[in-house]
Parts: sequence; structure tokens; C-alpha cells
Amino acid sequence: MILTVTLNTALDITYRVPRLTPHASHRVAEVTERPGGKGLNVARVLAALGRPVTVTGFAGGATGAALRDQLAEAGGVRDALLDVTGRTRRTVAVVDERTGDTTQLNEPGPLITPEEWSRLRGSYEELLPSAEAVALCGSLPPGVPVGAYAQLVRSARAAQVPVLLDTSGAPLRRGIAARPDVVKPNADELAELTGSHEPLRATRDARRRGAHTVVASLGADGLLAATPDGVWQAAPPAPVHGNPTGAGDSAVAALVAGLAEDSPWPRILARAVALSAATVLAPVAGEFDAAAYEDFLGRVAVTERASAA
Amino acid sequence: MILTVTLNTALDITYRVPRLTPHASHRVAEVTERPGGKGLNVARVLAALGRPVTVTGFAGGATGAALRDQLAEAGGVRDALLDVTGRTRRTVAVVDERTGDTTQLNEPGPLITPEEWSRLRGSYEELLPSAEAVALCGSLPPGVPVGAYAQLVRSARAAQVPVLLDTSGAPLRRGIAARPDVVKPNADELAELTGSHEPLRATRDARRRGAHTVVASLGADGLLAATPDGVWQAAPPAPVHGNPTGAGDSAVAALVAGLAEDSPWPRILARAVALSAATVLAPVAGEFDAAAYEDFLGRVAVTERASAA
Repeated sequence: MILTVTLNTALDITYRVPRLTPHASHRVAEVTERPGGKGLNVARVLAALGRPVTVTGFAGGATGAALRDQLAEAGGVRDALLDVTGRTRRTVAVVDERTGDTTQLNEPGPLITPEEWSRLRGSYEELLPSAEAVALCGSLPPGVPVGAYAQLVRSARAAQVPVLLDTSGAPLRRGIAARPDVVKPNADELAELTGSHEPLRATRDARRRGAHTVVASLGADGLLAATPDGVWQAAPPAPVHGNPTGAGDSAVAALVAGLAEDSPWPRILARAVALSAATVLAPVAGEFDAAAYEDFLGRVAVTERASAA
Repeated sequence: MILTVTLNTALDITYRVPRLTPHASHRVAEVTERPGGKGLNVARVLAALGRPVTVTGFAGGATGAALRDQLAEAGGVRDALLDVTGRTRRTVAVVDERTGDTTQLNEPGPLITPEEWSRLRGSYEELLPSAEAVALCGSLPPGVPVGAYAQLVRSARAAQVPVLLDTSGAPLRRGIAARPDVVKPNADELAELTGSHEPLRATRDARRRGAHTVVASLGADGLLAATPDGVWQAAPPAPVHGNPTGAGDSAVAALVAGLAEDSPWPRILARAVALSAATVLAPVAGEFDAAAYEDFLGRVAVTERASAA
């Protein structure tokens, strides 16, 4: 199975309103609710691709219970989340139906105790031997040490399980130094990490910081990957319009599946770009347009940019 | 005990953000959560005044369970809510810390089945004989007939229990015709009911529609009451600045307590105005500033406006 880790899970709530007017009162026309946090989105995509997948991380309080109920109802994902005392955060996305724009309100995550963090590490080490690959995804809730991902990367490497890291800021900086197989920053995260806004230079710089492969997600320009085998750019066949939320999580799903299979990089990147683009066409994160995915798959252009630095 | 009925209970969530910017992403600085819906706010105020109080109405789903847990934790209120299949709505109030303004997002209520509505009426009739007075509060969730409050008013009158109705629109129009002891519209609700924006005329007109007493809440101008004993205006001793949310619910708490005691109207109105004003000084609905209440109580001006029409 593939293991995804989501330390800061979320109950993702979407409100559709005819028009968002600050300081006014709104009747919400439609409410949707789903388990969230990057690693849970990645797991849902993997399950939809027919891959056995297990999720771990923290869930607590009434929102944690609702999240786990919904995960069980949806099926396809094995729940190995740990129960914690704090309450899992909610995120509220308010979609203005007039413009299609989204206003996002993110609650802070629950405070994790040292005992809970220690319990997570123990459970993670028990899951590792049966994992083909691991994805470590998203932000850290309060109480979890900033070097948390570095620890989880080292455990995966010690167990000889390929590991992908998708986070930002200090947890990325610390995690990358522990030499994960793949990191997948977006353009902003890459610039924050390296100080450079030039994607090729920044991607190579990120590799020198410790990751074996850096896959930068560049929005409409697709993915730029600096790997031990070369540097490739993979671009969608045509611009895709829709909801970009979750496109990065779908790319991670394809990348971690590729790590599990030990596929060649051009094939992995083509899948990741096709899956991302098919996700933009689907209305909600963690879902993709399966027909579009099949269609895009043969039409992604993967070009070698230069030899690896 | 006093009975309050909240057919459309809510889990009231408040988010404080440094500044609300449409179409941007926000980290919520502070989250508070409390049982809501007008009748639950009324009950909390009555409990804080030391009155035995029972709440009934509907609660369902994960949000209904969270609401009931929080009600039990807070204490002071007996929970006679009925469990339903639909999910209790959430309301999200986003407070902009820069301006103090609130943007309100209200989910739709759960769909109530005919069987659930019938079960509520049965439970209500069992509670009535032990009630000194009843307050029927707030909007109707989908599925509850528009004449619901008219039915509940008639049952209370048949059981000789004084009944107050605080709602709006068609449920108010239908409910008032069943001759409740008191209705408490605000200025907008009164204008919608009667077509008149002139408070004295509109209050008298509302009385002719069936209510024994009409108490109109006029914001900073206090309360205007057309009663069988005369017409009074009760005004706070000075303008009060703060959060007006819940001020109307506190007025209802004082009015229904007055009905239970069969107090003279000037005394009831003085309490209602003092309690409203003390609520504006407290940061959240369902709470009031106890010291300010004591202070205001002796200083509310109650003036006879004219004889009853």
C-alpha cells in the first residue's frame, strides 16, 4: 500500500453564496463537507486510481469524528489516523457564485501534545514496513516540532521506503535536509526556500539542499523536475480552465504512485501533469475527471531541459 | 420551569480575523463555538438569571451532537431537544478585528420529516403542564409547516400556559392569528407584518391581528408595548455601545419571565430594557453584563404613551 501522512487534517466546508458582501448577512445556498488536508486529498485520488492506500495523522474532537465518519463512508482509504484531545480544524471556502472567486477561512489546527506526537511516530514506524512509498503532506499543527518531517523522512529512509515531502516554510527547509526522495514545492514555496524566482535555477538549488528529486509545480506551465537522471519539463496539452484547488495534491498522488512503482521519470511526470489537469476540470479537491485524465495522458509534452546539475 | 422552543437550532461559530478581504485566504485568529438559535439564547439568559428552564426543538447530525454536548457542559438548561435525521445548521460570524464589523454566513436548516414534526408536538404537549410560560423562537427549518407556531400557540393556550412568539414573516403572520399572549417583533418585522413604518400605529395594528400584547423592539429607542392595560415606551438610561447580537433574545427572556410571574407591564418592560442594554455590553449572544443589568434596572424610563387602542 501507499501511506500518506496528514498531521494537520481538516474538515473542509464549502459554502456557495449568490454574492459575498462583507459585513452583510448571507443565506448559504449550498453546503458541502469533506475530509481534507493535503494527504487525505492525495489518498482519495490514489483510491480513485485503484491503489491500496492508508492514511495516518491526527484527528480529534467533533470535527475529527465527522471527518473519520465521512472517510469511512466514502470507502477506498484505510484509516490509521490517531485520536487526539484537540479539535481538528475546519476550513471554510466561501464561493461567490457571481464571480466564481473563493474566500478562504482556515481555523488553527489542534494543539498536539508531546505524547501524541510520540505516539504518531510509533504508529508510523509500524506502518512503514508494509508501505511501498510514503507521502508526507501539508502544514504542521501547533505543538508538533518544526523538525517533524525531517524525523519522518529519516525513518522512511532507514526502512528503505521511498518518501515524498510536500510542505512549505521551515518544515520544508528542515525536511529537505533529511534527504527525501522527492519534494514537490509550488513556485511560491520554491522561491521562499531558495530565494530565487527563476524556476530552473531554484529547482536545481533545492536539489542541492538534499532532495534526490525536486518536482516544482508551476501552475499552467506544468511541472519542472530536477532528478538524478536529468531535468524535464512536462506541460499540459492545452490550457485548462476550472478549479485549481487540489491540482497539486493530484500531482503528488501520481508522483508517489510512480515512486512506489519505480517508473522512469518522464512517465511519472506525464501522469502527474495529466492528473493535475484532470483535477482542475473537477469541481472539488480530491476528485478528477477520469475521461479527461485518459485523454490528456497521451498528449502531455515531456521535454528534457538540460542535464542535471 | 420556563419552556423555550427552538425549531431551527444552530451551532454558532465566530471567527475573528485581522481583516476580511473577499477572495483572499485568511488564518482565523480565534474560534468560538456555542449553541445557538434564538430560543437557546433566551434559555441561557434565563439560566443566568437563576430561572429553571427547559429547551425543546430539533437537533441532528454531528453539529446537533456538538450543540447538545456544549449545552450540557454549560449547565443550567434542561435539554429536551429531539434528535432528527437532518443535520443542525451552522452559522459562521466573521468578525473583522479592524472595523468590528461582522459578516454572517447562515447554513440552511435540516429537512424535518412529518413524523419528526409530529413527535415534536407530542413532546411539547407533554412538557406544557409543567411550564409556567413558553417562548416560541426563531425561524422554521425546511419541512415544518408554516402554521407550526399557530399550532404551538393554540396548544399552550388550551393548557392555559402563557405563550410568547418571536419570529418573522409568514410564521409570525400565521402565529399571531392564534392569539399568543405576547409577540416581540423588531422594527423591520413589525413593518413587514403591518405595512407601516410608524411604530405606534404598527404596534397597535399588530395587536388587532390577534396578539394580546405586542412588544416592539426599536433598537436604541428601547421597547414600545401595546398591552391590554395601556401603551408604554421603555427606554435605556443612555445610549449603549457594543454588540447588539442577542439583545432581542435577552428582551424575550425578561418578557417570558414576566409572563411566568404575571408581573405588571411597566416592571416587565423595565427589566427587558435593562437586560437588553446589559447584553449589548457583553461580547457574545446569550450573555449579559450582570453589574450593568443591576445598575440599569433602576434607571430605565417607562412612560405611558397613550391609552390602548
